[in-house]
Amino acid sequence: MPVPASLDAILRPRSLAVIGASSRADSLSGRLLGNLLAGGYTGTVYPINPKATSVGSLACYPNLRALPGPLDLAVVMVPRDAVLPAIDECLAVGVGGLVVITAGFREGGEAGAALERAARARVRAAGVRMVGPNCMGVINTDRDVRMDASFTPAPALPGAVAFASHSGALGVAMLEAARDVGLGFSQFVSLGNSADVDVNDLLEAWERHEATRVIMLYLESLPEPERFLALARRIGRTKPIVVFKGGRTAAGQRAASSHTGALAAGDVAVDALLRQAGVLRAATLEEMFGLALALAGCPSPRGRRVAVVTNAGGPAIAATDALSGQGLAVAALAPATERALREFLPPEAAVADPVDMLPSATPDNFRQAVELVLADDGVDAALTITVTPIVVTPLAIAGGIAAARPPAGKPVLSVFMTAPSFFAEAHSIPGLPPLFRYPEAAVAALAGVVRHAERAAAPATDAEPITMRRSEIVERAVRRGPGYLPPAEAFAVLEEAGIAVAPFRVIAEPAQVAVAAAAVGYPVVLKAFGAALVHKSELGAVALALGDEAALAAALAAMAARLDAAGVRPDGYLVQRQIEDGREAILGITRDPAVGPLVMAGLGGVAVEVWHDVSFRVAPITEADAQAMLAELRGAALLDAFRGRPAGDVAALERALVRLAALAAVHPEIVECDVNPVLVLDAGRGCVAVDARVRIA
Amino acid sequence: MPVPASLDAILRPRSLAVIGASSRADSLSGRLLGNLLAGGYTGTVYPINPKATSVGSLACYPNLRALPGPLDLAVVMVPRDAVLPAIDECLAVGVGGLVVITAGFREGGEAGAALERAARARVRAAGVRMVGPNCMGVINTDRDVRMDASFTPAPALPGAVAFASHSGALGVAMLEAARDVGLGFSQFVSLGNSADVDVNDLLEAWERHEATRVIMLYLESLPEPERFLALARRIGRTKPIVVFKGGRTAAGQRAASSHTGALAAGDVAVDALLRQAGVLRAATLEEMFGLALALAGCPSPRGRRVAVVTNAGGPAIAATDALSGQGLAVAALAPATERALREFLPPEAAVADPVDMLPSATPDNFRQAVELVLADDGVDAALTITVTPIVVTPLAIAGGIAAARPPAGKPVLSVFMTAPSFFAEAHSIPGLPPLFRYPEAAVAALAGVVRHAERAAAPATDAEPITMRRSEIVERAVRRGPGYLPPAEAFAVLEEAGIAVAPFRVIAEPAQVAVAAAAVGYPVVLKAFGAALVHKSELGAVALALGDEAALAAALAAMAARLDAAGVRPDGYLVQRQIEDGREAILGITRDPAVGPLVMAGLGGVAVEVWHDVSFRVAPITEADAQAMLAELRGAALLDAFRGRPAGDVAALERALVRLAALAAVHPEIVECDVNPVLVLDAGRGCVAVDARVRIA
Repeated sequence: MPVPASLDAILRPRSLAVIGASSRADSLSGRLLGNLLAGGYTGTVYPINPKATSVGSLACYPNLRALPGPLDLAVVMVPRDAVLPAIDECLAVGVGGLVVITAGFREGGEAGAALERAARARVRAAGVRMVGPNCMGVINTDRDVRMDASFTPAPALPGAVAFASHSGALGVAMLEAARDVGLGFSQFVSLGNSADVDVNDLLEAWERHEATRVIMLYLESLPEPERFLALARRIGRTKPIVVFKGGRTAAGQRAASSHTGALAAGDVAVDALLRQAGVLRAATLEEMFGLALALAGCPSPRGRRVAVVTNAGGPAIAATDALSGQGLAVAALAPATERALREFLPPEAAVADPVDMLPSATPDNFRQAVELVLADDGVDAALTITVTPIVVTPLAIAGGIAAARPPAGKPVLSVFMTAPSFFAEAHSIPGLPPLFRYPEAAVAALAGVVRHAERAAAPATDAEPITMRRSEIVERAVRRGPGYLPPAEAFAVLEEAGIAVAPFRVIAEPAQVAVAAAAVGYPVVLKAFGAALVHKSELGAVALALGDEAALAAALAAMAARLDAAGVRPDGYLVQRQIEDGREAILGITRDPAVGPLVMAGLGGVAVEVWHDVSFRVAPITEADAQAMLAELRGAALLDAFRGRPAGDVAALERALVRLAALAAVHPEIVECDVNPVLVLDAGRGCVAVDARVRIA
Repeated sequence: MPVPASLDAILRPRSLAVIGASSRADSLSGRLLGNLLAGGYTGTVYPINPKATSVGSLACYPNLRALPGPLDLAVVMVPRDAVLPAIDECLAVGVGGLVVITAGFREGGEAGAALERAARARVRAAGVRMVGPNCMGVINTDRDVRMDASFTPAPALPGAVAFASHSGALGVAMLEAARDVGLGFSQFVSLGNSADVDVNDLLEAWERHEATRVIMLYLESLPEPERFLALARRIGRTKPIVVFKGGRTAAGQRAASSHTGALAAGDVAVDALLRQAGVLRAATLEEMFGLALALAGCPSPRGRRVAVVTNAGGPAIAATDALSGQGLAVAALAPATERALREFLPPEAAVADPVDMLPSATPDNFRQAVELVLADDGVDAALTITVTPIVVTPLAIAGGIAAARPPAGKPVLSVFMTAPSFFAEAHSIPGLPPLFRYPEAAVAALAGVVRHAERAAAPATDAEPITMRRSEIVERAVRRGPGYLPPAEAFAVLEEAGIAVAPFRVIAEPAQVAVAAAAVGYPVVLKAFGAALVHKSELGAVALALGDEAALAAALAAMAARLDAAGVRPDGYLVQRQIEDGREAILGITRDPAVGPLVMAGLGGVAVEVWHDVSFRVAPITEADAQAMLAELRGAALLDAFRGRPAGDVAALERALVRLAALAAVHPEIVECDVNPVLVLDAGRGCVAVDARVRIA
């Protein structure tokens, strides 16, 4: 297969053919041609239609061989069954790239899916990239390209946001809404069925695209999650990536015989991947939009202290509540700033943050106040809030805010609670900050700006996840076939991976328990095991805290009698040193059908069963990932010094987690693993796996 | 004091004087007069200004005595220091009610606060009601009144929502935004400083006001919380009450020497009150708005099953995710419904819920699809989603949706992801459902409609909170002065209240412990107590599980030696029966400065300390409140059958909680109480308080 070509032929074509151009202006192709012409496309457009001589004033060509010059991009809009021949024709004339608008492929059943596979095979064999099928086109607002090959009802403003969407209709709707708040786009790609080009290709292209400073993604799936993870981690440090993932609940519940599997249901895998990738995940479409708007319009602040400048108290209170809810801080203004504000504001105005200038505030009051609070060393960002003033117009206030000259690196966001017509008019004011309708939405967006700034400023962790050789034990088990590893093998796999295990002996004959116990050291735990003993505790197949040989013998006799009465024959017995006084944790592995191997950390016992206090990542993970996972646990305090007890060996638990993830990454055959409990000893003393179940697919 | 008059003179005046009317049209009073005239006020307006003969074409009067007829309402806009004389003049001519617009009172310092107190005293003495001061006016859109005595820049549409706001500017901004989506108001009251009329007065008025079907409140404080609770509980069953409470974090942390006190910080008291009141609490201003819009425009559905009808897949996925997040369900359509949809939709359309009719969907497709899904017995409500269609206009689609005839009791909400100009034009289409810009906002609003429907349909619980006589023990303690009750008294107060306590004896002399232990029965717990022993466990002043007299004697000797070594002299010893095998819970009392006595329930130990898994209500509470409190705990499963253990006696814990709340309600002097732990025994065996601390202020 040839090396994949760049996307330049698709996003920066010097010539473009619309294959299947209709002469009707209100047809789909007529709209696309209209957008190309209205947008002032700098290349040459060739309509292709064997039955017409001209289309919308453009000379029309019967086929690609008739074109007067070379062809970079073909936009294919012919009926579905004519798409493959059209692609063949394109490849025959040496087209640079393809955008297939036509629908009815994978989304429409098996016949369409077969056609889609055939289309992909042909373009891949030719080393030509293809967007679509079933898409709504592409846009590039670069001044030297100006290509709107889409169906957007209103042209996209040029700007800093590159936008890819798995849903074409949603993409077009977002472009339309964006105009209203002055949000501009560098490029837009409707991915459609992503038969060839997908989001990862665009991430690579946008990393190098200078006009693109913010990346916005509407995703319904996450193809090639490992590649996404690597790209997003790298690119997101300089160009913030905003992601809305649709279909949170689509994955549904998966069959789960392990804790880890049961807890990984639903959205957990995608959430883990997106956290790990460090992207800004939007909870709603509106939030995605607000994040992109703020990131495109704001410099990166140096801290979290926000000054609110308002002409109305109520919305400022809502903003203050939201700041605190988002982990940002209401700035404490310096006395000098308060004095300077007092000089020009009426005596009834409030000059502590929030600065409430009352409804009588003028445009120039807003300008001065924004400049003053941002000149304060204790302020990292400003939020202005304007309700429709009584004397001047909201547009005049917007002019005042736009005239403010904030210091470098101090963002401003503006809320206008006013008539909607304001927005359509305001965005043409040069220098106006990103505009929001409600204070809470602005604060959520500002929080995203701050999170990105903090990520960009943090030292790059170059640490790679550790790698591990494949385990001989697992290899052998795979050859035996699916099922649970016997306990001795499960423990041995963990030990090989570098995870400490409580000393144990496995014996087949009850007569050997005393010798085994002497070898591991008292007190011991006695466990019967076997295929019929998956739920050990219910059958009384576990005996704890056996302090000496007599207690062990008694427990063994009672256990054997119980199992016998239940008609259960154990495969053998495990004698294990009882570990005293550790904090219970659980580590685990599961496998997500879309994302692949996941590793889990949680606090043991009730914490995991009742509070579901667990954290997931995609394996393998770095030490930093492991740290973040444990820090995310709501009950993380239980691992620290707590109730007079010293801190637990969190570092050891992190190392065990990194190693378990490496084990998961190198063994796709391990589909489930619960290490439960892992006992975390006092700091410096390590952590010890006490029970482990490993299932091979 | 005379019985407070109704608010009719303020909200339905037949005559209205504007005191301080300026002859300048762009003055504040000029705007208010302009709104009155533009709105077609059905009564008579009298401008009052001693220096003008006419104001805005209206004859002007020098003072109230010069008026030709009786005066219902005076709108006072004179400078602050002229307000009290103006009120006096109003009262002298027998005015029916007052709206004081003028600012500079309580919000501006002590001089203003004193004037405000004086104003309140005068109107209360006269039995005349007053709105304000420092407010933005009142509106009543009743056809026979049509009074807009406010500064709203665009007139409010008539409608079903009554709106009160502690922030005038915010209120006016919301009225303006409401026009854009066609949301209409029955009445609006800007409460200002609420020197006299407050939100509870309006709740009472709106309960009786026929045109008002939905109540929307922007609150910055909760005056008279008990009255609010009683009113909201009653009225909210028929007229949904939507509340946004600003200032969540203002209360800050209060000094807390008890668990209950520490956990009650911040927003907890208000949240408890609003839950108890059964109102719909909005998390953001935008959500408040969406809830009011949906409640005003929708009938109450009979269930939670929602059908989504869309012309774009992406936003429908976002809607589906949101439905599941809000506890609503994507309806499963009947095969007959799917067949009927299939008959008129193209083959590529999806006819299972969500019904994706593709971008080519026509207005009539929307009409038919909405009617079909709502005719399905498995569907309780419909959500339509439209992105800008390619061939027809969004307005045409809106017309199709408006033409649909849904069956009674089946709400429809509509999302239009399209250019903002659509909204300004759409809301004049008769029969159009409530309009939203994003699917998630529509789903959140629909969830509120469902919650209200469920509340309205639930059988009214007429149960009153139990009442309790004041405790002699507490009375005596109050006479002694502030501090902790000695343990015997704390336990006795609980027992008096009907809360079971583990058998105990308190002794002053170590020599008596054996007799005490024999009386309560072994095993026992031994605790030393006294003012110097607040942190018992740190001084080793608690010994558990003493099985016989020898163990008790040994523990006592060791404890006495430890305390002696630490230089601590206990006031005495408590010997208590050790309760085996209960589930640990915590109950408590604290007192919120704004809301009053709060009662808390939580699970004991780590659950409360690490997970903060607690629930609060305002005391007293009903059995239903207690049930809801325990059900709210994230770890509620721990009280049920769990890990092979039978269910705990939850009913007994609920009874104890109701009784503790009654104790709190009747004793304002109890400022803190932790009953920690309460051990919940197996079902039928009750629950037992094992330790209790009670602090008297």
